Amino acid sequence: MKAYLISIGDELLIGQTVNSNAAFIGAQLSDNNISIIKSSVISDDIKTIINEINLAVSLADLVICTGGLGPTADDLTRSAVVQYFNTELVFNEQALEDIKSMFKRRGRELKDAHKDQAMVPKNAIIIRNENGTAPGYWIEDNNKIIIVMPGVPYEMKAMVTNFVIPKLVDYIGKPKEYIKKITLQTTGLPESLLAERIGNLDELLGEAKLAFLPNQYGVRLRVTVQSTEEEQANNFLSEIEQKLRSKIGRYVYGRGDETLEEVVGRMLKERELRIATAESCTGGGLGDRITNISGSSRYYERGVITYSNAAKVELLKVNEDIMAEKGAVSAEVAMQMAEGVKSISGCDIGISLTGIMGPSGGVTDKPVGTVYIGFCDDKLCTAKRFQFGEDRILNKNRATQAALEMIRRSLLGIPFDE
Amino acid sequence: MKAYLISIGDELLIGQTVNSNAAFIGAQLSDNNISIIKSSVISDDIKTIINEINLAVSLADLVICTGGLGPTADDLTRSAVVQYFNTELVFNEQALEDIKSMFKRRGRELKDAHKDQAMVPKNAIIIRNENGTAPGYWIEDNNKIIIVMPGVPYEMKAMVTNFVIPKLVDYIGKPKEYIKKITLQTTGLPESLLAERIGNLDELLGEAKLAFLPNQYGVRLRVTVQSTEEEQANNFLSEIEQKLRSKIGRYVYGRGDETLEEVVGRMLKERELRIATAESCTGGGLGDRITNISGSSRYYERGVITYSNAAKVELLKVNEDIMAEKGAVSAEVAMQMAEGVKSISGCDIGISLTGIMGPSGGVTDKPVGTVYIGFCDDKLCTAKRFQFGEDRILNKNRATQAALEMIRRSLLGIPFDE
Repeated sequence: MKAYLISIGDELLIGQTVNSNAAFIGAQLSDNNISIIKSSVISDDIKTIINEINLAVSLADLVICTGGLGPTADDLTRSAVVQYFNTELVFNEQALEDIKSMFKRRGRELKDAHKDQAMVPKNAIIIRNENGTAPGYWIEDNNKIIIVMPGVPYEMKAMVTNFVIPKLVDYIGKPKEYIKKITLQTTGLPESLLAERIGNLDELLGEAKLAFLPNQYGVRLRVTVQSTEEEQANNFLSEIEQKLRSKIGRYVYGRGDETLEEVVGRMLKERELRIATAESCTGGGLGDRITNISGSSRYYERGVITYSNAAKVELLKVNEDIMAEKGAVSAEVAMQMAEGVKSISGCDIGISLTGIMGPSGGVTDKPVGTVYIGFCDDKLCTAKRFQFGEDRILNKNRATQAALEMIRRSLLGIPFDE
Repeated sequence: MKAYLISIGDELLIGQTVNSNAAFIGAQLSDNNISIIKSSVISDDIKTIINEINLAVSLADLVICTGGLGPTADDLTRSAVVQYFNTELVFNEQALEDIKSMFKRRGRELKDAHKDQAMVPKNAIIIRNENGTAPGYWIEDNNKIIIVMPGVPYEMKAMVTNFVIPKLVDYIGKPKEYIKKITLQTTGLPESLLAERIGNLDELLGEAKLAFLPNQYGVRLRVTVQSTEEEQANNFLSEIEQKLRSKIGRYVYGRGDETLEEVVGRMLKERELRIATAESCTGGGLGDRITNISGSSRYYERGVITYSNAAKVELLKVNEDIMAEKGAVSAEVAMQMAEGVKSISGCDIGISLTGIMGPSGGVTDKPVGTVYIGFCDDKLCTAKRFQFGEDRILNKNRATQAALEMIRRSLLGIPFDE
């Protein structure tokens, strides 16, 4: 089954809103063996909407439209659907009930504009909306399925999860072709060096596909296999994963959407270890990422953001003379920061960051993007130098990623430098 | 001038990556009077890419493609472009120089895969890439402009800002119709209440348009006016801005893309005030935002992330008995944290956050989303309670936003509670 996604709304075209809806629906569909051939964003305009549905139906078996179903004047999707199918609006009892009960829950007064949303295209099965007033539509029309939903993310998401996906899975039945994917998250090696270490792809992949997806945190490797037999597809996939891991295993920190803070957090919890952070250049970004994980209080005890030199001395007992001699951005100070926060917190691991994030402040031997990350546990106290780029925010994110990776490597006994 | 955006990459179709590139480019174009008629996402497949460029060129004057220019085998956009224009690849000296110097900066070794990226379509003007190895292409072909750039956001963004937009503006010359936009950033009041305070829109706007754009940090108000005279458009715009500010001025913290940390940072610098943070539930997120601003070391002295109760006592002298009685998430503890960090740092302002971010950990009188923010300066020491939602990450972001807003209000003498 081939799907075509249509996102309707000027705010998407002019970039005032990022199109996360298409990403959500795309992920849901591909997880259920439905391939997305194309996704488009168009303007709130009846003709434009009708033309796009025409194009989509000519290319795909399933067309999913989001946006433009609200109660206000600029919501034109319903009219476009009615015109496209040359049908009419009919009153839907269930839709009105849902609208009423939602207003009751929210303690708001029902307006006619909202009652009007119970009028739906005659040929549509409604998709109930738990979180808003506009119902969605499920329309089957000569062997094609057209689905229309509101653009408000949490309204749409509930409809997709609770109704659309189950009904689609049911509709498709057992797929003829199984498309299985796996993503390996790597960090520490650029795309080109990863490719080099992986070596001959044809040999490795055969019929499978491998995509390199770089971002600020590293490179994600997505492997896709296709087979008429589900088990065969799965076996093939794990075979390739094993081969990949045998070549670049130490750079792989996670699978799927796992974040490095998630992976490191899980390891710390399992090992019942506690950690403390001492941040200068990242200003709390590392602590922020660690505490994005629910339950992190189990292993994250405290952090200090020693942005000034005075704070480094007062909170972490960094030696002023050494700081004066080597500079606040140095391996020595990084180590003393890590050691200092480990000792004041009594944690098993202390990690620190000090660097020059830019855009200004660089010097010849320490240009913008220079970061020292200090690491101390009961066995080892060391610091590693990194050279990132010119962009301040990217540098902060890449530095916190590198710090988390040092923790991961230390827990797995992987050297920091290989 | 009409633009058509093409984003290339399976990772976008299957929702592995949210298409923020299209949003960025869309915003840049619309800010420069170029209307985006359509945006599409397609698969990494040569035929598909060629067909889509064909479609785009038939509908628009400007076609901007992103993605698929990397050094690895799954990057097919360059080949597609060469085939579409029926041209050939030629070596580009400048491109190679840029690649070499980037590798030199990063202290990495140059690989053939990268040298190959200096081979570009014969009919292309290259768009230099400061942050990566793949140059972009600017191609003019019977009165249409086709632009091709890498999909890595920070590489593409620099190209758009430094080369594409200036060259486009130059190419277009003086527009017939001036479309002027201004966005006011507000926080602290939900969409519906803002609308209520603004009142009658027709009266306020006349021919102009007003869009309410809520996000996790607040509601952005976008005003759009259109006129054949640039000056008239600008006057009309500032007229409306004044009227809006007269009604909801205290909730407006910035214009355009300004962030609250930017605005607050500027104010602290001007007033030569220094600030320190004490974070529990946000785990460093506030310090991270403050230090996203270059030059923040001028006013941000230090922070502590007292995630454990022990850390609250040891680093901030929070009273154990009061914490035991009132709980770590309480107005009393928030105030002691703010007071504590102000006194140990000797800063003018101490700000603190303690709360329950969820998804678990809520209790009847303090459900998930409860946050106390403490504020202390030389005149005042107080705490304010906030009730956010169920999502952990959103709660953290909304809490840091609320803390920055309390600082802004204190500096402007606006009460925290009105």
